[in-house]
Amino acid sequence: MQNTNLEQDFLLFLKEIQGYKEALALMEWDSRTISPANALESKADVIGFFSTKIHKLSTSKKMGDFLKELKEKSNNDLLQEIIRVCEEDYSRSSKIPAEEYQEFVTLQSKAEIAWQEARNKNDFSILAPYLQKLVDFNKQFANYWGYEDQPYDALLHEFEPGMTTKKLDAIFSKLKKDLVALITEIKHSTKDNHTFSLNESFEKNEQNDFIVYTLKKMGYDFNRGRIDETIHPFEITINPDDVRITTRYDESDFRMALFSTIHEAGHALYEQNIDKKYANTPVFDGASMGIHESQSLFWENFIGRHPLFWKNNRDDFLRNAPKSFKTVSFDDFYKQINEVKASFIRIEADELTYCLHIILRYEIEIALINEELKVEEIPKLWNDKMEAYLGIRPKNDLEGVLQDIHWATGDFGYFPTYALGYMYAAQLYQKASEEIKIEELIEENDLIQIKAWLSENVHRFGRSKRPLELIEAISGEGLNPDYLTQYLRAKYGELYGLS
Amino acid sequence: MQNTNLEQDFLLFLKEIQGYKEALALMEWDSRTISPANALESKADVIGFFSTKIHKLSTSKKMGDFLKELKEKSNNDLLQEIIRVCEEDYSRSSKIPAEEYQEFVTLQSKAEIAWQEARNKNDFSILAPYLQKLVDFNKQFANYWGYEDQPYDALLHEFEPGMTTKKLDAIFSKLKKDLVALITEIKHSTKDNHTFSLNESFEKNEQNDFIVYTLKKMGYDFNRGRIDETIHPFEITINPDDVRITTRYDESDFRMALFSTIHEAGHALYEQNIDKKYANTPVFDGASMGIHESQSLFWENFIGRHPLFWKNNRDDFLRNAPKSFKTVSFDDFYKQINEVKASFIRIEADELTYCLHIILRYEIEIALINEELKVEEIPKLWNDKMEAYLGIRPKNDLEGVLQDIHWATGDFGYFPTYALGYMYAAQLYQKASEEIKIEELIEENDLIQIKAWLSENVHRFGRSKRPLELIEAISGEGLNPDYLTQYLRAKYGELYGLS
Repeated sequence: MQNTNLEQDFLLFLKEIQGYKEALALMEWDSRTISPANALESKADVIGFFSTKIHKLSTSKKMGDFLKELKEKSNNDLLQEIIRVCEEDYSRSSKIPAEEYQEFVTLQSKAEIAWQEARNKNDFSILAPYLQKLVDFNKQFANYWGYEDQPYDALLHEFEPGMTTKKLDAIFSKLKKDLVALITEIKHSTKDNHTFSLNESFEKNEQNDFIVYTLKKMGYDFNRGRIDETIHPFEITINPDDVRITTRYDESDFRMALFSTIHEAGHALYEQNIDKKYANTPVFDGASMGIHESQSLFWENFIGRHPLFWKNNRDDFLRNAPKSFKTVSFDDFYKQINEVKASFIRIEADELTYCLHIILRYEIEIALINEELKVEEIPKLWNDKMEAYLGIRPKNDLEGVLQDIHWATGDFGYFPTYALGYMYAAQLYQKASEEIKIEELIEENDLIQIKAWLSENVHRFGRSKRPLELIEAISGEGLNPDYLTQYLRAKYGELYGLS
Repeated sequence: MQNTNLEQDFLLFLKEIQGYKEALALMEWDSRTISPANALESKADVIGFFSTKIHKLSTSKKMGDFLKELKEKSNNDLLQEIIRVCEEDYSRSSKIPAEEYQEFVTLQSKAEIAWQEARNKNDFSILAPYLQKLVDFNKQFANYWGYEDQPYDALLHEFEPGMTTKKLDAIFSKLKKDLVALITEIKHSTKDNHTFSLNESFEKNEQNDFIVYTLKKMGYDFNRGRIDETIHPFEITINPDDVRITTRYDESDFRMALFSTIHEAGHALYEQNIDKKYANTPVFDGASMGIHESQSLFWENFIGRHPLFWKNNRDDFLRNAPKSFKTVSFDDFYKQINEVKASFIRIEADELTYCLHIILRYEIEIALINEELKVEEIPKLWNDKMEAYLGIRPKNDLEGVLQDIHWATGDFGYFPTYALGYMYAAQLYQKASEEIKIEELIEENDLIQIKAWLSENVHRFGRSKRPLELIEAISGEGLNPDYLTQYLRAKYGELYGLS
């Protein structure tokens, strides 16, 4: 009986933290979509206050006591799953002294402002001193957290628990070699895929109609979510029954809104289908950033850019765009939404070049954390690598090192998860082909079955399984990057007529 | 130096409470406008949690100690203003035992559900037992709060500090007599105002254009607010730079959206123009519910239904409704937006009959609190009074006692503020006529000057002045209901050709 009370108190304590997180998520959603311009400053203040509050509660002695006592005393299986996840967070967070964490948070906001100013003035030197401090904090955090092999492992763990620098080095060096080779072949291919354009006018409301139709097909539940407009599309979970996505319309290029919405809806399907028994606890979350990204990329690229997807949905698409695309053949349409073209900007990259953008950042991060590179040396190294991997050299830092916000927010170890997401997605797609004949389902436009397979194998577990554990349980092997290169070679080999 | 630290700590403590209030307001706004259907339950849970948190902090020993110590030690004038308001809240709230307040809050939510069910089944008896308990709680609260003359005074104070039952009795009995007489005269008037209709189609987006145009004219700041759609229009303050209003469109009756938006914008102008030195304290709020309502009614009725307002804006209005109202003359248009017609539903009532709806509820509230009436006797008394004052008798309780939610939320002493708002508005309008020649400004469509006068005399003070204090400072006399009856007699006498 005493145990039961303790268990209930603990769950109420977690629910309290979750209450703050729900308010915080709503305030963030509001700030990034519809908040009146002048209200942002005061809102940021409250957001900061709530973030600190959550951190304090999560690292409190109360939390520590709960975990210690319940781990020994409770024989409730669900509770032990929850305790495992809470313990992991607690043990990491409480290793950082409170004042140091506070300093880091303050530095983060200052660095974000500096990043914005550096962009406005196209001057990396404005950001550099902040970046140096953020790198130093990360090195210090790695020491606090501890690691067996390399300090970067401790950072990776924050976003991709269980992943190591050693594993990544092996995976990325192979992937880089394969991708560079494939891109070079395409560059020398004689087949020309650039003789037409999809930049025809497509009215916002009409785009939205097709997007809503597509998301419903995917199984996105509009009674438990909504779509709004924003500058940078994102997915955010307010509570288990309120998983929102945002998008951005470009009336002269429908690909912007369509593919980014399918992408964000991939994230949202994950969150909408985590088992509700984990609600109001930290287990109600994605297994890792990489697994989360695998879901968005799975839908955006493996489904949304699949020829069979368009075989079925192209008529609906054309009905929604009655004024445009009349003269574009199916083949041209398909080729154009899968065009390969080296780009300076990561978020505009195609399927083939995307991972090279990530590998470039990964290599720079490692060098920074291992003190083999100084912050002020980043721009040159960035541009050199860009030229080596993609054959283009940024004219300025806006096209280069200043394009992403992640380093300015102090997130080192985050970028690799984007490429991991790609590889997980390819591996999942391969397994789904075997188990549910996925191409037949795409051809029949029966996407709900695909969602059901992902929910059964990935979504429902939330954070109760670690990423590599999950992948192994599904595919019977560890992360295998070959599925991605095989998929890319088959698809783009055909598109560009490679032998 | 010690004092200064204490002052800063106190302000930080208030700011913390305000942080919760800001999150709470945003969650309420979200729940009432755009939240996905299934998310409401979890959201209500968090809203309840935050409300309790705010109540706990506001009645905490910490708050009591701050107030006691600072009242003696601080010689900062602004701080003393803040302390006065906090003390008033603290002394009232802390008189109610915490468990009893918690019981009351729980009862409130249950009664709201019962009210909804009673409405669905058109059966007052479902609500009755909850209502009895809520009345009992209110009687008990009145005892805790204390009063000199009548228990109802203690309840009134919650919404209209300084107002008493004695004053209200005198005001309302005179007002009732005057209004019933005027309505009877109109009923026997031979002038027919009902030969045409404004129920022509007016597309939502076009209505919205005219509404935004009007609100900008009034001085509503869209950089510090926004308009959204909802079932029941409302105004809500998220923070001093985020004051939102909502509206509801009826494409076959533009009056719904237009007048309710002007009404809510009247509330919003108040909140947008409170002196920012009071931000993050409870002084940043309206002086009372009555003064707040005076602002919305001032704009909705005294400006929005004024013939000179339409003299200027009718062309813009017609331009925004290109397909409709072509054959309606100015006179007919003006008469129709000021039509007098007895209605069962308070929120649909016209200027003349509105206060009678309030007086009816006021008389019933007094009888309940003074134990001269049992809850189950309300419906009959309601219908009898309706017939006596307005000459119509509700067919059922949906048209009668079940129409408003206020009693089901336990708010007794709230209804009178609606009628007080009317009288305050008339008194303010009278004073504005003398000081800024308000009709000339309306004729010149220079509404910003009117807003500036209200900001100078009402808005900026927030809760730092009490309602009657404010009215006296502006008009040199106490609340005088004659301005309202004079205004109504002049306007409707002319409209209905009374002698």
